[in-house]
Amino acid sequence: MPILTLTSDFGTKDGFVGTLKGVIWSICPNAQIADISHEISPQNVLEGAFTLRRAYPFFPPGTVHVAVVDPGVGTSRRPIAVCINGHTFVGPDNGLFTPMVEEAEKNAWKLEIFLLMNEKYFLSKVSNTFHGRDIFAAVAAHLANGVPLPQLGPAITDPVRLILPKPEKTATGWRAHITVVDVFGNCTTDLPAAFLVEREGITFHIHGREVHGLTAAYGQKQTGELIALVDSENYIEIALVNGSAAKALGALTGEAIEVVE
Amino acid sequence: MPILTLTSDFGTKDGFVGTLKGVIWSICPNAQIADISHEISPQNVLEGAFTLRRAYPFFPPGTVHVAVVDPGVGTSRRPIAVCINGHTFVGPDNGLFTPMVEEAEKNAWKLEIFLLMNEKYFLSKVSNTFHGRDIFAAVAAHLANGVPLPQLGPAITDPVRLILPKPEKTATGWRAHITVVDVFGNCTTDLPAAFLVEREGITFHIHGREVHGLTAAYGQKQTGELIALVDSENYIEIALVNGSAAKALGALTGEAIEVVE
Amino acid sequence: MPILTLTSDFGTKDGFVGTLKGVIWSICPNAQIADISHEISPQNVLEGAFTLRRAYPFFPPGTVHVAVVDPGVGTSRRPIAVCINGHTFVGPDNGLFTPMVEEAEKNAWKLEIFLLMNEKYFLSKVSNTFHGRDIFAAVAAHLANGVPLPQLGPAITDPVRLILPKPEKTATGWRAHITVVDVFGNCTTDLPAAFLVEREGITFHIHGREVHGLTAAYGQKQTGELIALVDSENYIEIALVNGSAAKALGALTGEAIEVVE
Repeated sequence: MPILTLTSDFGTKDGFVGTLKGVIWSICPNAQIADISHEISPQNVLEGAFTLRRAYPFFPPGTVHVAVVDPGVGTSRRPIAVCINGHTFVGPDNGLFTPMVEEAEKNAWKLEIFLLMNEKYFLSKVSNTFHGRDIFAAVAAHLANGVPLPQLGPAITDPVRLILPKPEKTATGWRAHITVVDVFGNCTTDLPAAFLVEREGITFHIHGREVHGLTAAYGQKQTGELIALVDSENYIEIALVNGSAAKALGALTGEAIEVVE
Repeated sequence: MPILTLTSDFGTKDGFVGTLKGVIWSICPNAQIADISHEISPQNVLEGAFTLRRAYPFFPPGTVHVAVVDPGVGTSRRPIAVCINGHTFVGPDNGLFTPMVEEAEKNAWKLEIFLLMNEKYFLSKVSNTFHGRDIFAAVAAHLANGVPLPQLGPAITDPVRLILPKPEKTATGWRAHITVVDVFGNCTTDLPAAFLVEREGITFHIHGREVHGLTAAYGQKQTGELIALVDSENYIEIALVNGSAAKALGALTGEAIEVVE
Repeated sequence: MPILTLTSDFGTKDGFVGTLKGVIWSICPNAQIADISHEISPQNVLEGAFTLRRAYPFFPPGTVHVAVVDPGVGTSRRPIAVCINGHTFVGPDNGLFTPMVEEAEKNAWKLEIFLLMNEKYFLSKVSNTFHGRDIFAAVAAHLANGVPLPQLGPAITDPVRLILPKPEKTATGWRAHITVVDVFGNCTTDLPAAFLVEREGITFHIHGREVHGLTAAYGQKQTGELIALVDSENYIEIALVNGSAAKALGALTGEAIEVVE
């Protein structure tokens, strides 16, 4: 059974997500469809990009990922499909797929990007406000049915790119940045654990607070203690045991953390 | 694979929605099930009706739609199934299906309504507080399995009806009403775009603010600008570019908009 | 098609739930997956236990239930699978399955508990922070594929147990406790309706308010009236007609209700 995922800023109250599933099942009735998130902050393309980046590798190759965070809907921004390692990403060309594109380039993986031009694979009537429904879900369902990517339109090589936060080397270590604050208030950063040489004497400075050393798991320190650990994608994360580090620190996405090795 | 949808005011915290899926898959194990919304405001039948009305046409004929916004559960209000154009709607007879019934009547489509009387298709024990589980999900799953509608109970022709907001003709144009405020704060109205003769010189008056002309897409005006446009179901919508019109205007469902052509 | 359910405190914003589905479908591509709840209060094992207890019996035997409310992730707390009446529960050994274990013991149903030791059924790389993904979802998918439970690891008989609230007999009736406050503000208790001898003259005392008698259904009293009724799982519930009893009473989970027969 073909697998699709959905990521958007649609929320779950208004029925938009159900509508996408109706479109998909009208075209590809036996598709498995997983919601990754529909609570991306409205029009926050970077947040959508990070969320999809963290979840997609756990789906099997062949999965088609629909992502719609799309402030430019109805304007000249292009609709695209991006194919990397057997995963296909369908959505607006506004940088939403930058982390996957950069990862492919870094690893010299095959990267194919196609404009969605062939209206045969759209709904018969395309609105100016809901391309998630009229273009992206429809095209994704056709891809799930086996339509070859080159049928969709011409290949391109100049996708719009976001500027992603990256850790900076400093005299004493690294300047990392918070990339994701999750539901528990854990603050993930852009610093891969593999970049660290020193793990015991290391200190993290954030909002006037200091965290010493790396902890192996949340449950190894006392409730209320601020810790640093390696997250489930192998990046450095700041957490508060049985609480919210984000609340305790007043920390937000994008904030800097000084790492002294 | 049979397709069902679920619409309710159950929220997603308490496990009620999962319970409905357990009931459905116990009866019809290969059903595809889409959540349309479970965040209908508690007992707001009109909101549930509009939400389902907007989503259901994107599902294929044959889909069974379970809808449960049901303040009268356990009283003498009737359980019904409504069949229109191959779509079957299952839920309480409290007006939840009025938009679909009115649309069928307006277009002279075949409209069939059946009382759910045949307890053979209910769960073996029916509570007084959770007919969504004990009656509606169970009946819907049997329908998805192919049980003919007349097996459920006698046909009726007098469903309970909501009074739906409708645009009123005025001396200078129309008085429209906000029908849905979505997650982005976009305010959809009851005024079909097809009713408008004039599209350039038109003015919308709402909460002391004026909006001139129709805009083709959100991204065609500047951030923070209040615009009117044709929504994805071809109704007039008031929106704020990259923001929430509802918040900016303090607008609520039901509010009037004066349209001067 | 194999059926799995998911219960967690992951929320739905961060993509963790989608990630679990990716893991499951990578192993068991045709699985049906129902979300029971992902809005369990963070690390509230008791709330997770009650929520799963109320929903699981409506799934067919053979269903595999993944539950992850797991403050001890990455520490020495054990991962387990519990099999009762054809239902298998997979998650941390922290008391999350206590209601099901106690019910099995009370009814002398066959109860089997296995440690998850066989890393063959885990993801190839197991993190210290996300066993829901790396262990529980993966093992559950293998079970859904038909892997026999004893393949997972040794049987145990000493699962960690929560102390569940229980109604206490008093001189004049019962002291019940609120176990679940649902989205409507209905307050379910630990008192089975079957324990009551007297149903008409009965009085419920809560927060200085009195409720007389049992009402058959919400719609049988006036809006705003506080009522007691038998809930959909046959426990005593306090509700406010067309409103929230929890808000009106300021009532919280765990609070006592004096029942005078």
